[in-house]
Amino acid sequence: MEAYFDNSATTRCTAHVREIVQRAMELDYGNPSSLHKKGIEAERYVKDAAASVAQTLKVSEKEIVFTSGGTESDNLAIIGTALANKRAGKRLVTTAVEHAAVYQAMEFLKTVGFEVVYLPVDQNGVVSLEALGEAVDGQTTLVSIMQVNNEIGTVEPIMDAVKVIRGKNPKTYVHVDAVQSYGKMRIRPRQLDIDMMSVSGHKIHGPKGVGFLYVRDKTKIAPISFGGGQQSGMRSGTLNVPGIAGLGVAARECYEDFDKKVLHMRGLRDYFIEKLSPMDGIFINGNAGNAGNAPDMAPHIVSVSVSGVRSEVLLHAFEECGIYVSAGSACSSNKRIASRTLSAIGVSPELSGSTVRFSFSAYNTKEEIDYAVLKLSELAPKLRRYQRH
Amino acid sequence: MEAYFDNSATTRCTAHVREIVQRAMELDYGNPSSLHKKGIEAERYVKDAAASVAQTLKVSEKEIVFTSGGTESDNLAIIGTALANKRAGKRLVTTAVEHAAVYQAMEFLKTVGFEVVYLPVDQNGVVSLEALGEAVDGQTTLVSIMQVNNEIGTVEPIMDAVKVIRGKNPKTYVHVDAVQSYGKMRIRPRQLDIDMMSVSGHKIHGPKGVGFLYVRDKTKIAPISFGGGQQSGMRSGTLNVPGIAGLGVAARECYEDFDKKVLHMRGLRDYFIEKLSPMDGIFINGNAGNAGNAPDMAPHIVSVSVSGVRSEVLLHAFEECGIYVSAGSACSSNKRIASRTLSAIGVSPELSGSTVRFSFSAYNTKEEIDYAVLKLSELAPKLRRYQRH
Repeated sequence: MEAYFDNSATTRCTAHVREIVQRAMELDYGNPSSLHKKGIEAERYVKDAAASVAQTLKVSEKEIVFTSGGTESDNLAIIGTALANKRAGKRLVTTAVEHAAVYQAMEFLKTVGFEVVYLPVDQNGVVSLEALGEAVDGQTTLVSIMQVNNEIGTVEPIMDAVKVIRGKNPKTYVHVDAVQSYGKMRIRPRQLDIDMMSVSGHKIHGPKGVGFLYVRDKTKIAPISFGGGQQSGMRSGTLNVPGIAGLGVAARECYEDFDKKVLHMRGLRDYFIEKLSPMDGIFINGNAGNAGNAPDMAPHIVSVSVSGVRSEVLLHAFEECGIYVSAGSACSSNKRIASRTLSAIGVSPELSGSTVRFSFSAYNTKEEIDYAVLKLSELAPKLRRYQRH
Repeated sequence: MEAYFDNSATTRCTAHVREIVQRAMELDYGNPSSLHKKGIEAERYVKDAAASVAQTLKVSEKEIVFTSGGTESDNLAIIGTALANKRAGKRLVTTAVEHAAVYQAMEFLKTVGFEVVYLPVDQNGVVSLEALGEAVDGQTTLVSIMQVNNEIGTVEPIMDAVKVIRGKNPKTYVHVDAVQSYGKMRIRPRQLDIDMMSVSGHKIHGPKGVGFLYVRDKTKIAPISFGGGQQSGMRSGTLNVPGIAGLGVAARECYEDFDKKVLHMRGLRDYFIEKLSPMDGIFINGNAGNAGNAPDMAPHIVSVSVSGVRSEVLLHAFEECGIYVSAGSACSSNKRIASRTLSAIGVSPELSGSTVRFSFSAYNTKEEIDYAVLKLSELAPKLRRYQRH
């Protein structure tokens, strides 16, 4: 049996995505900047994709900027806004649990004179709104908060956060990294009252190498790429027509039968947590599954610490069984650095090094969960004994 | 009949390129940063592509950084090197005829305190080595010169230019925009003694949204994207595996039967010029085809001015006949701005506005050229009469 539980690292492209990518590479291969028919045909793919994406968010297609992926979207939002508004202030606010694409962009801005405040989170990974209220001042031009944490699945209270921000400084721009929430939650940027939002194609069964940034009309943001002036100058470079077309299809598809899909993923998640709960030395991070004041959790991510077993050892033992999980988030898993997120929610370094992430898609099944639970129950005691030697 | 003569804007993907893109989207869809087998399978595509590309240049695969395309490659080379070496100096040198991705990156650097020297070119578009020698000083950290001009096809004397640069300042980095030369010329970065070189996938029958930058070992260059630290920190963001794999195949393919293909393109070009030469009011820009001291010209680009006919009018008349050409370069053709290149070689504004670019691939045929010549000979007088009214 094969069980791919690393969907927050990347997903498989759907058949319809692959078809349109193929068509744009073979038949309608023009450059959208070309004035002739072949260019116009190619441009139609881009417009259709922008319309599809905009439709899922109930925004205008003019507010969609296509990028090379989530990292570029985050970079553009953060660096582009910080630099464009530096005369209004040089204070930026974000959380302690952001993806590296946000964190490293902020760290870069520190090297060029910006001040960055990293907000603490509670033991569930929920950002402190009190700290947020204290951090935002008259010089704060941007707040960036992720919607779903990529490592533990916590849903941040974006709407409440925006209210706090607007109350302190109505001119502060708000960026949301929605790479792990888009396709798993219904998102209405206008209702949330946010200004920018990052999405990646390959997390939603679309192509790698493409993503988009929602940029609300009138947002003051500077480009971070320079050249032919494509996309109204916001992002130079020949448009990646096949990728963008694939992203458009993936966006539309992931919001088809949406409630059913989310219910399915949430069902897998709850079932998985229920099965894990009685097991000794197994801990769910982010308090997922706790009753009462448990935070809202994404339907597709479960972070599991297995005491006494190194993440990589468990990962490879699972791999032998055809089960694919991640040690930390794939984006940083090549490096042996401690997880900022797990550290921020108070997971001990030891347990942090014993943590794997399961991330589901709508295409996973209950049988795969049963299989993973069975294998974990067999492997955990064995590996613990092994590591003691 | 259909004749696609806009291959310098973009090309059609080959069947092998499409196949590997498809496979990486459907079967081997892992994230190369993942530690498990699916990640390692995906990483193999990237390594194979790096090896294929490196092989065409006789460089090490560790010197290949994959990007989202030519624009990002140029931006990374120029901004990354300028910023990383700003303590050594803030003078940058380039030519008056570069692609917008170089020109606009330079203009951006001017806004953050750099001085940029734009070297003049002669009436053939060849950069002045004398001016180059005068421009490079002890504070010059980077010189960027394109290898083949995207609008008129002039081949710049890179090797001679490097000698001049090294003679003036051995520490100056040299970047070459090879977007229009890669796949059309044999390029050996080590023999040329250059430090960086930009290439785009979709100009060589590979996918859009992917390219690479050759970065010579020990080059001091700072990343311009921030995140998960992929590609040794040089370029963060999940690797675009399908695109990179497609680029690898395209790179290998375009250097297979290379001499034959170049001979074929050059044959088309020379035949085309021969047919155009006797026609009234038709001028070839960049002196292509002139005997004697004519500069070296790329095998695939012919810039043609048709006096008395607006570029767009001719472009659309051609389009009606199934012939696709470009008004200027596609990358800037959406905008009604005068061509910097045509202006730099002394073409009058009037003729500049009457210029179209024919760009060939190895897949074009002599019959297509005959067809284009026939249509041009019919259209030009008709359109001239029309425009006079």
